[in-house]
Amino acid sequence: MTVRDMAACARQAAWEMAVLPDALRRRALLQMAGALEAEATRIFEANARDMARAAEEGLAAPLAKRLRFDGAKLADACAGLRALAALPDPLGRTQLATELAEGLELYRVSCPIGVIGVIFESRPDALVQIAALCARSGNAALLKGGREALETNRTLFSVMDGAARGAGLPAGWAALLETREDVGEMLALDDWIDLIIPRGSNAFVRYIMDHSRIPVLGHADGVCHVYVDRAADIDMAVRVCVDSKAQYVAVCNAAETLLVHRDIAPRALPPLADALRSAGVALRGCARTQALIPCEAATDADWDTEYLDYILSVRIVDSLEEAIAHINRHGSGHTDAIVTQDEDAARAFLSRVDSAGVYWNCSTRFADGYRYGFGAEVGIATGKLHARGPMGIEGLCSYKYKLLGHGQTVGGGVRFTHRPLHRDCPLDVQSP
Amino acid sequence: MTVRDMAACARQAAWEMAVLPDALRRRALLQMAGALEAEATRIFEANARDMARAAEEGLAAPLAKRLRFDGAKLADACAGLRALAALPDPLGRTQLATELAEGLELYRVSCPIGVIGVIFESRPDALVQIAALCARSGNAALLKGGREALETNRTLFSVMDGAARGAGLPAGWAALLETREDVGEMLALDDWIDLIIPRGSNAFVRYIMDHSRIPVLGHADGVCHVYVDRAADIDMAVRVCVDSKAQYVAVCNAAETLLVHRDIAPRALPPLADALRSAGVALRGCARTQALIPCEAATDADWDTEYLDYILSVRIVDSLEEAIAHINRHGSGHTDAIVTQDEDAARAFLSRVDSAGVYWNCSTRFADGYRYGFGAEVGIATGKLHARGPMGIEGLCSYKYKLLGHGQTVGGGVRFTHRPLHRDCPLDVQSP
Repeated sequence: MTVRDMAACARQAAWEMAVLPDALRRRALLQMAGALEAEATRIFEANARDMARAAEEGLAAPLAKRLRFDGAKLADACAGLRALAALPDPLGRTQLATELAEGLELYRVSCPIGVIGVIFESRPDALVQIAALCARSGNAALLKGGREALETNRTLFSVMDGAARGAGLPAGWAALLETREDVGEMLALDDWIDLIIPRGSNAFVRYIMDHSRIPVLGHADGVCHVYVDRAADIDMAVRVCVDSKAQYVAVCNAAETLLVHRDIAPRALPPLADALRSAGVALRGCARTQALIPCEAATDADWDTEYLDYILSVRIVDSLEEAIAHINRHGSGHTDAIVTQDEDAARAFLSRVDSAGVYWNCSTRFADGYRYGFGAEVGIATGKLHARGPMGIEGLCSYKYKLLGHGQTVGGGVRFTHRPLHRDCPLDVQSP
Repeated sequence: MTVRDMAACARQAAWEMAVLPDALRRRALLQMAGALEAEATRIFEANARDMARAAEEGLAAPLAKRLRFDGAKLADACAGLRALAALPDPLGRTQLATELAEGLELYRVSCPIGVIGVIFESRPDALVQIAALCARSGNAALLKGGREALETNRTLFSVMDGAARGAGLPAGWAALLETREDVGEMLALDDWIDLIIPRGSNAFVRYIMDHSRIPVLGHADGVCHVYVDRAADIDMAVRVCVDSKAQYVAVCNAAETLLVHRDIAPRALPPLADALRSAGVALRGCARTQALIPCEAATDADWDTEYLDYILSVRIVDSLEEAIAHINRHGSGHTDAIVTQDEDAARAFLSRVDSAGVYWNCSTRFADGYRYGFGAEVGIATGKLHARGPMGIEGLCSYKYKLLGHGQTVGGGVRFTHRPLHRDCPLDVQSP
């Protein structure tokens, strides 16, 4: 089947999925979990073939670790499916209800987006999560995983597809793309596909954004900051900063720059530097930082760099305002944290920093769909339209306006009342 | 000032506007209204110069009518400003509140998008509305009106800018672009501008969408349908159909195609055709339509055509399903209506038709921000991401996630509770 055929099929499936009852979409996820458990051996065998090929090709150890799909990963994936099935239905929700005129009622009701193309890394559990998020929210999905996970993905997909169709999802509810050429074809199908979500390297995401007329949600960079305010608790600052930087360096929500208020720098920087060095982090500081702690000099480029490594740039700022201006200039709008005991400083930081996540006294590493309680995430968006931050099933929904009348016309001289209604759309009865 | 400078200025202004209190943004709108009334003579003189030039250049009468800005239009514009000022603040609203873990609280709070570029037609009242919608929602605006309204727009803008800055909006909260070259420059400033909203012809909107990396919201086509179901009240069908087609033909929410169920066609088509012809509408029908009423033959191209004129294509369908499939294939996702007394048919139509507005027993002409109770609209979007349908101040808002902790780290072994909280973010106290 060509990618165009898959997309046409997905388009048709999406129209069917938009009206499937919640219970059926839930059941599809539960049956996927059951089928994955039943077919565990076949899945592990496929993964072993991928792992063997990766070893031959000399795949780096951290990537090989992500590629592995074992009993623990399967258990997590199935628990995730069951958790998603248990979340409330995101569809058919009345978001706004207004009487426009007597007997003329406007309801804004959530609905699926339609057909979503997702391109993701070589982590087989990502396939399970993304397919499940799309199915739960009534969207059809075109899925392209990493090349290294080819056999695992094929097996996972075939098991999930069988279970989903057995539960009543329409054929074409999801399709698996396998080559770069497939992705190129998909990007041209703006008549059929409503949204592309690319996950992966900065360069890759930018390439996708530049080569498609289809709307793209995602993030290219994750240049996250921790700002240690003059009124910070220094012990807390050390904990938050070490976790933000070093708990897992290869991810977009890890911190890349530490900003420290000049008044607290002489007391805060030495313990911060000690703790970060103990965690294996190399520091690159501005001139004033270098006067307080031994470290390499940061260059201008450092403030814009996503290291994804055990490196942190450090800058002393004269004020909260300077910290905010630095972040709004050099940040990527992903996630930025302030450590302070001063509520006014926190309020200003959280209002003025123009990022998807603005945190007070906690680690930037919390920026994640699972941690936010969304069950999982299909991606993290740093733009400001539609979904911002981690995107779960709610981010995969659109809405439509339903207007219910009794023959009203504009020319007939309607008297507008614009009275808020406190009820759901009578045509959309939510399942319990 | 270059467009780049205007955009940089707007970017800075937008950061300031995001934290201005509601009362100040309201006051700015009220003072704009007062200033426009005070400067009425100067505004009418500028408009007289535009009208004179338009007459010299032989502007068509309907366009000249839209260009005129007289006492009635001024009164409407000022009433609109005051109505927008009275709407509840769209900013600082807590949309989601979850306890992630003990003492770690997540709030999703609405905020402005940032810098918005709007390109609109030669209707001076559009400038007033759009600038006001942006200011009310805390967004900075780059505004490009139609060439014909140049002098009126300059005067309106200068009066509104003075009043807004007097009320405390930052310099650069809005800027007026005047040439096509300005628009070209604006489209390249994806570092500074968050959203482009183009209003105007199909070709123009497509051009904008294809020539910018900045997200675009709007609509190219408005191919709207009225479907007369087998269970329609024929009198109502006639009223709704005539209003949808002929109440104002030059607008995107006017109907272009009438679909009629075959069972009701012999009874419904003759009175529909009579009423439409009386309203000046020429019909183009499918073969089965031509067998029932005298009319020109429709070609395949007719089903995809936005006439914006006194022309309506007519097709007989065998079923509700066929009507829905026709609309999803040929429609533009704008607004489509069913006329029926059968609630199940209405439910199916409203669920399955994949359009921004889906109407039951009322005219497609209601698709409009003012009629929806949004005070005004900055545009109508037919995409499915972010805002769909008429966009008012809510469509001009984004959100951010605010996470409030007490030093929590991911590595520290947080126990997630994911408990819904029933309160607003304590850092965002809504004004009454």
